[in-house]
Amino acid sequence: MGSQDTQLDLHCINTIRFLAVDAVEKAKSGHPGAPMGMAPFAYTLWDNFLKFNPLNPNWFDRDRFVLSAGHASMLLYALLYLTGYDVSLEEIKNFRQWESKTPGHPEYGLAPGVEVTTGPLGQGFANGVGMAIAERWLASRYNRPGHEIINHHTYALVSDGDLQEGVSSEAASLAGTLGLGKLIYFYDDNEISIEGDTDLAFRENVGERFEAYGWQVIGPIDGNDLIAIESALLQAKAESHRPSLIICQTIIGYGSPKQGTAQVHGEPLGEEAARIAKENLGWPLDPAFHVPEEVLAHMRKAVERGQAAEQEWLKRMEAYAAAHPDLAAQLQTQIDGNLPADWDKGLADLFPQDTKPIATRSASGKVLNLLAQRIPALLGGSADLAPSTKTELSGEDDFSAENPSGRNLHFGVREHAMGSIAGGMARHGGVIPYTGTFLIFSDYMRPPMRLASIMRVRVIYVFTHDSIGLGEDGPTHQPIEQIMGLRTVPNLTVIRPADAAETIEAWRAALLNKEGPTALLFTRQNLPVLDRNIYASAEGLQRGGYVLWQSATGMPDIILIATGSEVHLALEAAEALAAEKVKIRVVSLPSWELFDRQPLKYCESVLPSAVERRVAIEAGVELGWERYVGARGAVVGMKGFGASAPYKTLFNHFGFTPEHVVQAVRSLLAGTSEER
Amino acid sequence: MGSQDTQLDLHCINTIRFLAVDAVEKAKSGHPGAPMGMAPFAYTLWDNFLKFNPLNPNWFDRDRFVLSAGHASMLLYALLYLTGYDVSLEEIKNFRQWESKTPGHPEYGLAPGVEVTTGPLGQGFANGVGMAIAERWLASRYNRPGHEIINHHTYALVSDGDLQEGVSSEAASLAGTLGLGKLIYFYDDNEISIEGDTDLAFRENVGERFEAYGWQVIGPIDGNDLIAIESALLQAKAESHRPSLIICQTIIGYGSPKQGTAQVHGEPLGEEAARIAKENLGWPLDPAFHVPEEVLAHMRKAVERGQAAEQEWLKRMEAYAAAHPDLAAQLQTQIDGNLPADWDKGLADLFPQDTKPIATRSASGKVLNLLAQRIPALLGGSADLAPSTKTELSGEDDFSAENPSGRNLHFGVREHAMGSIAGGMARHGGVIPYTGTFLIFSDYMRPPMRLASIMRVRVIYVFTHDSIGLGEDGPTHQPIEQIMGLRTVPNLTVIRPADAAETIEAWRAALLNKEGPTALLFTRQNLPVLDRNIYASAEGLQRGGYVLWQSATGMPDIILIATGSEVHLALEAAEALAAEKVKIRVVSLPSWELFDRQPLKYCESVLPSAVERRVAIEAGVELGWERYVGARGAVVGMKGFGASAPYKTLFNHFGFTPEHVVQAVRSLLAGTSEER
Repeated sequence: MGSQDTQLDLHCINTIRFLAVDAVEKAKSGHPGAPMGMAPFAYTLWDNFLKFNPLNPNWFDRDRFVLSAGHASMLLYALLYLTGYDVSLEEIKNFRQWESKTPGHPEYGLAPGVEVTTGPLGQGFANGVGMAIAERWLASRYNRPGHEIINHHTYALVSDGDLQEGVSSEAASLAGTLGLGKLIYFYDDNEISIEGDTDLAFRENVGERFEAYGWQVIGPIDGNDLIAIESALLQAKAESHRPSLIICQTIIGYGSPKQGTAQVHGEPLGEEAARIAKENLGWPLDPAFHVPEEVLAHMRKAVERGQAAEQEWLKRMEAYAAAHPDLAAQLQTQIDGNLPADWDKGLADLFPQDTKPIATRSASGKVLNLLAQRIPALLGGSADLAPSTKTELSGEDDFSAENPSGRNLHFGVREHAMGSIAGGMARHGGVIPYTGTFLIFSDYMRPPMRLASIMRVRVIYVFTHDSIGLGEDGPTHQPIEQIMGLRTVPNLTVIRPADAAETIEAWRAALLNKEGPTALLFTRQNLPVLDRNIYASAEGLQRGGYVLWQSATGMPDIILIATGSEVHLALEAAEALAAEKVKIRVVSLPSWELFDRQPLKYCESVLPSAVERRVAIEAGVELGWERYVGARGAVVGMKGFGASAPYKTLFNHFGFTPEHVVQAVRSLLAGTSEER
Repeated sequence: MGSQDTQLDLHCINTIRFLAVDAVEKAKSGHPGAPMGMAPFAYTLWDNFLKFNPLNPNWFDRDRFVLSAGHASMLLYALLYLTGYDVSLEEIKNFRQWESKTPGHPEYGLAPGVEVTTGPLGQGFANGVGMAIAERWLASRYNRPGHEIINHHTYALVSDGDLQEGVSSEAASLAGTLGLGKLIYFYDDNEISIEGDTDLAFRENVGERFEAYGWQVIGPIDGNDLIAIESALLQAKAESHRPSLIICQTIIGYGSPKQGTAQVHGEPLGEEAARIAKENLGWPLDPAFHVPEEVLAHMRKAVERGQAAEQEWLKRMEAYAAAHPDLAAQLQTQIDGNLPADWDKGLADLFPQDTKPIATRSASGKVLNLLAQRIPALLGGSADLAPSTKTELSGEDDFSAENPSGRNLHFGVREHAMGSIAGGMARHGGVIPYTGTFLIFSDYMRPPMRLASIMRVRVIYVFTHDSIGLGEDGPTHQPIEQIMGLRTVPNLTVIRPADAAETIEAWRAALLNKEGPTALLFTRQNLPVLDRNIYASAEGLQRGGYVLWQSATGMPDIILIATGSEVHLALEAAEALAAEKVKIRVVSLPSWELFDRQPLKYCESVLPSAVERRVAIEAGVELGWERYVGARGAVVGMKGFGASAPYKTLFNHFGFTPEHVVQAVRSLLAGTSEER
């Protein structure tokens, strides 16, 4: 420790360390090593730098703190408890237990003060970049001379593992490009990973790498030197044009007999080693979970400090509202996550009945552009595919280091970071982020989509080129298993609209969905705009599935169920069969999640259980469709990967023709269909 | 061009350029810009450096060439045609058409000479690292003084997009750590991406970044300067301890009126621009697909050169075989992808009937360690989780820069690159790669798993901690949708064994599967070893599913279907119900893919269609299980994400108890179960 450290600082730091040690001991599982090594830095940051109000974890202009190394969760829980958040010592003692606020990895929504759910490495790193983007954009949109109402930093603690994951490389490169000067990351350089010394797999020069990205790199500093830590943080805050990485050499499991080894990473120290660690650092052996009174008194000053800071900000907000009432009202709407009153005005008129066939990606582009005019919080972009995904907002600037008020984000060819950054933006609040890429590349984004689903945040993922309909680019670019794969993710709403009108409804559903992310799946190829005088209204999409058309009233003989582009195929086949007096119904089922949320009675009205003869049609894997067609139904789907050829050729060869659907229906009606 | 370039060189280069231009024009889709810019480098490499035999694309010691920027496929097809591979001019004219050898992106298995399927950016970069690892390992295991039988380079062409993707960062860092000196990458630095100038999203200093990884960085050089290209390649080859990155400034769409812009990236130049480009570069306007005779004559010399090189190598192989007959025979078995005669000897004795309960991950570790003794080609490791995934080979060294003969790979916390590297190793041949991580992190690996599935290569993915059974680490680490998600991938075999005996069979199936990759799913928690005197033999796993137990002969009233750890739960419930005289069958269904490949008669014998009362039990999403339980069945599965708590608590709270299963059965038998 530095010579000027007070005994009190040391006590605070050791309190954090041994709360972590004792909680892990009691839980009989967890990660004591990282909190023991990072405690001095974390303490310095929280005690001297971080702007937060423990009594209002939602104060909008607080600094954001992300524990990207989520396994060090006890570090964060200890800080939350000590600084006065609504996290009791009892919760610390319930670490990793059923229904505690203190799960194995920090989860947004359980303990107040946890900004984001972390654990899968690299994600928090990229989430933080998203938060810094949101801050920078909001600041440049809303701040006015003399009114710096949005002005905070984003901090993260990142580990070797975080820096090895590709998603952090993607996000770091983008953060450097965008010049996110209020991003300050602390790299816990402890040279230990689970398999042993980081030399085994990680010999790169991290500092030089980040300099190459355009970051300010500070250090390496000694992780136990509070003076050095403080000066590093001051240097980081002084830099406004580049993100900062503070490289901090720490000792994992500091104080324990096995410090500096992989053994202190992911399991309890054990009674003996915990005892020795306490002795080594001059800590009382009893009681466990010891918190000296002066430590609590000192660290709880955060409450007073935080309240004063927020009060001061509220006053500034009042002055801002007086000077710029419209802006202030608009910002408040965004902060509250609400949509403006007239947010969907004009949507219904976008595609008049005589609209020529249009790809749903193009329809989406028009919808998005209209919505962006009405919803100032809407902000996003694509992973270098905007001309194809139609996600560019025309007439809007690019978001860049030079112009942070631009609304078009350019993520580069970095789908993974795009997903994580969007999650971070959503968690920052004040913005509604959307992303864009081909559906196939959702495979690169699954980890952040899953975290957004766990956190139930509103992110809108635009995925175009949603089937073999993308044609010549071939099997590497043709989604087959992706539609169903996305449907398996809990809390993620997947919508695959059939035409321009359903596309409007899909966007409407996505914006109204505050309970989780939404994936919108659009075609590359043109599709007719259904004549809604003949077919049921596209508003049925809001219920997930609806009866689009039926050849005659009464109980049908057979039901065709389809999504997206295949709805048109279903209609063609149905019309052919209707001419043969088959009583046939076509159900458009754009969103399974929305449909399954409807009352059973509604579901029964769309898919009556009495009608067991059903054919599902979707240009994706068949697995999963048994849910709706049951054991007596049939599926017209993909049985393997696609191929490279013009898309009409592909649809023909893979059996997506009215003739093939008609044949499937006939087999069913004749009872000759193969049943499983 | 450099002053010493011959007219012939220029003609060769322009032939490549305009074959690409004309093929894209004819297909009315494709990417002309990259081939036009990269042609000089590619020509120099293929004409002067690359070791290959067009008449035997499988010659084992050939240099490997990876077109990571797969959209530039026409560059590769032109080279293959011109150098004499079995790719005709007719195939070039059939670019991107149904059943051609020349799909939109290069696909392994179609045109000979395509080493690996590329297109999704970043993958080829990491594949190449896998190839270089395989080469280095085989060389150090098999070469002997005076017998350098394995000795080749791995080259790749990589684009801005490749370098933006995180997977390439992961792979580059590892390649630097491992000192892969025979890896030579050419970076097509054209400053253009689809959304416009790379400055929009990519301002980093690539050269400095790669130096930080430990690479030799050469250039930037002028992409049209053949002398500079040649000297860069010589410099790269002279370096044996570091991978090399040659930064080459090129002009996308070189020669066309829109050169250097995003417009020449991904669409035909158009008739007019194609004409101007030909005029600019002094190329005849007619005919399209013009190949000057002297160009073909010159480039086809590759055949003679290649045959001579292979002949010379074959002679050296003979000498090697004479000096080291056992080694040579062993190597040949590996090259052929065969298993040694006694490869599974001793497996059956690993877990005697009195074996104590054991986690399938631990059983897997024992099986793997035994197999590794018998199968010298088996080589792999984990993404920094080896102590948990049990994928370490005990008694074997680490693979490292210092010891390239080690068999334990350390991928670092880089699941994505691990997957891609393993795919590259498999495509190199001579090795059978395996990977290891928690099942949840399969989400980070989906892109390479998909490519391995498309290519149908043998990679074995070990995924442990396969359910909420991992306990306290919580929802971020508990796979819910991953089991079903993996099952949706065509050609990927997923196996989730129920105990140690099934674990043996799972590994056996994985090694015997030469038609695609296999994912092995193992528990963290201990499971009893089933008494196979009472229950059916685990060999049933080879058929994907089998009747494990039935309470009485004849047609059962009800069938319980389960996988992995839930098989034990099914048995407990079944025994309870049998005591109540319910005639009940328990089916273990560890692999849907293997099961669905069985004759219908076998499937019917296991799951008779007459028995519609079925309950599936799996600690994952329910969606998908309707395939086997139909509309009248029930599923005991997860309805959302997990939670952080000891695993027994979780199984109780989420309904994975014999009581709950019994109750589900009773509801079914009473006809009160909710049907969809």
